Amino acid sequence: MPTTRKDQAIATGEGQLCAKLVALDTFRENTVLLARDCAALRPERLRGVRKVEVRSGRGTVLAIPLICDDPNLVAAHEAGLSQPLARRLGARPGEWLQVRPAPPLDTLQAVRAKVAGETLSAAAYDAIARDLAEHRWSDIEISAFLIACASSMTAEETLDLTRAMVAAGDRLTWDRDLVVDKHCIGGVPGNRTSLIVAPIVAAHGLLIPKTSSRAITSPSGTADTMEVLARVDLSEEEMRSVVERCGGCITWGGRVRLSPADDVLISVERPLSIDTPEQMTASILSKKLAAGSTYLVLDIPVGPTAKVRDRREALRLKKLFEFVARRLGLELEVLVTDAAEPIGRGVGPVLEARDVRAVLEGRADAPADLREKALLLAGRLLEADPNMPGGSGAKRARELLESGAAARKLDQIAEAQGPSPVDGRLGGLIHEVLAPTSGRVERIDCLQIAAIARRCGAPSDPGAGVDLLAKTGAQVRKGDPLYRIHGCEALDFGSAVDLAGDNSGYELAS
Amino acid sequence: MPTTRKDQAIATGEGQLCAKLVALDTFRENTVLLARDCAALRPERLRGVRKVEVRSGRGTVLAIPLICDDPNLVAAHEAGLSQPLARRLGARPGEWLQVRPAPPLDTLQAVRAKVAGETLSAAAYDAIARDLAEHRWSDIEISAFLIACASSMTAEETLDLTRAMVAAGDRLTWDRDLVVDKHCIGGVPGNRTSLIVAPIVAAHGLLIPKTSSRAITSPSGTADTMEVLARVDLSEEEMRSVVERCGGCITWGGRVRLSPADDVLISVERPLSIDTPEQMTASILSKKLAAGSTYLVLDIPVGPTAKVRDRREALRLKKLFEFVARRLGLELEVLVTDAAEPIGRGVGPVLEARDVRAVLEGRADAPADLREKALLLAGRLLEADPNMPGGSGAKRARELLESGAAARKLDQIAEAQGPSPVDGRLGGLIHEVLAPTSGRVERIDCLQIAAIARRCGAPSDPGAGVDLLAKTGAQVRKGDPLYRIHGCEALDFGSAVDLAGDNSGYELAS
Repeated sequence: MPTTRKDQAIATGEGQLCAKLVALDTFRENTVLLARDCAALRPERLRGVRKVEVRSGRGTVLAIPLICDDPNLVAAHEAGLSQPLARRLGARPGEWLQVRPAPPLDTLQAVRAKVAGETLSAAAYDAIARDLAEHRWSDIEISAFLIACASSMTAEETLDLTRAMVAAGDRLTWDRDLVVDKHCIGGVPGNRTSLIVAPIVAAHGLLIPKTSSRAITSPSGTADTMEVLARVDLSEEEMRSVVERCGGCITWGGRVRLSPADDVLISVERPLSIDTPEQMTASILSKKLAAGSTYLVLDIPVGPTAKVRDRREALRLKKLFEFVARRLGLELEVLVTDAAEPIGRGVGPVLEARDVRAVLEGRADAPADLREKALLLAGRLLEADPNMPGGSGAKRARELLESGAAARKLDQIAEAQGPSPVDGRLGGLIHEVLAPTSGRVERIDCLQIAAIARRCGAPSDPGAGVDLLAKTGAQVRKGDPLYRIHGCEALDFGSAVDLAGDNSGYELAS
Repeated sequence: MPTTRKDQAIATGEGQLCAKLVALDTFRENTVLLARDCAALRPERLRGVRKVEVRSGRGTVLAIPLICDDPNLVAAHEAGLSQPLARRLGARPGEWLQVRPAPPLDTLQAVRAKVAGETLSAAAYDAIARDLAEHRWSDIEISAFLIACASSMTAEETLDLTRAMVAAGDRLTWDRDLVVDKHCIGGVPGNRTSLIVAPIVAAHGLLIPKTSSRAITSPSGTADTMEVLARVDLSEEEMRSVVERCGGCITWGGRVRLSPADDVLISVERPLSIDTPEQMTASILSKKLAAGSTYLVLDIPVGPTAKVRDRREALRLKKLFEFVARRLGLELEVLVTDAAEPIGRGVGPVLEARDVRAVLEGRADAPADLREKALLLAGRLLEADPNMPGGSGAKRARELLESGAAARKLDQIAEAQGPSPVDGRLGGLIHEVLAPTSGRVERIDCLQIAAIARRCGAPSDPGAGVDLLAKTGAQVRKGDPLYRIHGCEALDFGSAVDLAGDNSGYELAS
């Protein structure tokens, strides 16, 4: 009897509001729309609070209130639920909800302690990861926590945070002692080795249930490139079925609840463009442990325009990864690789998928650097197989690639994951950037090439990107094309061409 | 011709959208609602961007996009403007707006430098204050900046930030060489000296154009208590008129554009409950300088449950204030005062206004501690008058109070500001907290008393609060009332009584 309940709620000040779905996607943040003359609580009461607790029959969620002055949108007795809030609350329209100012969260005391430079306990990180996974913190609180951690976080704390993040989500188990994975910390355009390594390793018979990410600040993530070949937004059940059939998968991690606290942290790190060694370690290792991996090869590319700039920084990061992995029972091999220039030729989902295909099909024009790097990583993973003679991994990897076994495996995985939902054609708008003088390609700026590809629309337009026609060391003549820009939309394409005109990212020496 | 323009905009991909006002109060943050099939830009293009630039004929504002799936709320060719965005953009419904992904802000590079522990230049702080004042940063960016500054900010940087914050807003000028003000850093319940000091000083003839704040985390701010006596939300023009007529005013700073960057920083500091010495210094001094003050008496209360806990901390804060004030040409006298217990008897707007009246009217039951503290501060301010013999300030202050001149001055100021818009009655729900044993009041916990008063509804309900009947040193018998809780709403009142039941905040010794 809503009307009776409504009157009752207003009369008793019970804080009851009627759920109304508002078709607003507030991305990650839980948002609730309350009328300015809300029957449950007055907005001025929210001054200095900024968060309310919304309780349905199925759960309690904290939400950020926005005040609505349009009774057609949200009336005094209603709570307007944004899409993420309605989903997390599992609320039905017309259902009565309890709404009250949120009680203070204990974990926010820990944020203030961290700001004051204190070291937090393992128990504090457990509580923090749980609150993050349950979306109890607002974005500004997450931001404060990330920045406070950036200025002081010990290796022990990184370990505690990683462990807590694993515990706060689901954890996949596989009935194998050895479950392998590879990961690259990123920062190098075109570096799509996973799409070659995973099929090689799976073709050998090792289990590699790979979840990957979409681009954060790059022109393509592994998941974006794989999506050109197959569907990637698999549920945990679907992923398990693919892995059981094929021995491996390459899916997007967004639909499985592996280290959900990490997803929450990343959603704020992304717009801030902040990526500290400690958060990177906790993020990557928590995801791998939650996916059930037991053996990981980690690629840390080092280069003047890569994420890690010098060997000293790479070494510090390597040690942190090793410390945390060892303590959490994950066997880890770190490879510090050279990243003076983009890997492969294509930068952007469709172009990268083309390079991957070329390597797997053994085509003469396949980029050698991408092939050799993939073989190096695959060889190291194969060494994890106790039945392989030591030192034979590299040879075995090459066999599996050259025999076509890896290519067949990728086809099998792609078929099992389902058909690609995206337009896999290369962008039809084309501009060639030409060498201004004759000479040798001395340097290619990874950041600038990535920026041009992104400006052009990658990865939102899978067919947009940059196709490198000359790599470092090549001799070019004045007027020779250095690279080709592919675009799908005129505005973005024009803007990318302008950006390349300002700075091509290439340095030539005569 | 909207339809034609709409078709054109869609056809050319111009990024034009039609302004629609959405009655949503998103507090400080600029929010724009875009349809998922938005004609100007696709939401997936916003992945990792999170901000769009909205341009009208009258200005350009950065806004956070939310995605809307209800065409009745926001259609594909529309931009739904939240109230703060519409206000700042000066946009009219139906007007065509240019909407595009926001270009990266240079000042966010400074935030990342600060996170990395670098010291920022004066020019960087100038740019930051301007971007803050123009609402170009999102809340998570502001949060990141605040926390990065909390872990490393030099005195020079605090000076640069203060100067930049003054420059980014309006600055009042008065045709007097001497313009005085007083300020308390807060943290002590009931400490409403400004409402006594300002009338004394103005009655003497000094100019004291006082802007004050509403409560942030306390049960009442100076503006909240003054609002029981008069209107406080004055525009700059109205404030100037009151000061010209009365020699002083006590208004809320929210409607004048004095150090607007400070308002933006506070809007994020508040929910984070973070208040560092550096931000406090820049906040207070920028407001005072912008208000045209030349001489400031600053009260730093020190006590075990106050904002500043010990003398050492107070001394550090004092030196920072002095350094910045001196370099910016503001004469500053800092008083470190004792704050072992609340000042006065009432905690909450109506109760505090009652205490102020009692002191001004010279009533026998007026709280002596409030009177003496106000006289101390007023005396120091009067010493700034070059025509007063040195050392005569205290005596003069007492004369102006005891003669009734100060009381008349407050009446004059209140009348000039206009009638109070709030219900000035004391809350009718009453509960007395009784002494559990006989003995002497040893300690009163400022934090707990403030928490009880807030829980009861102060300052949203001006009549809610706590009325202290026994202060430290008093001898009480078992069953004597220690304090009275006044409430206006049953739920809040009950909750406050429960809180007092858990911990009365009083410590007795026999």
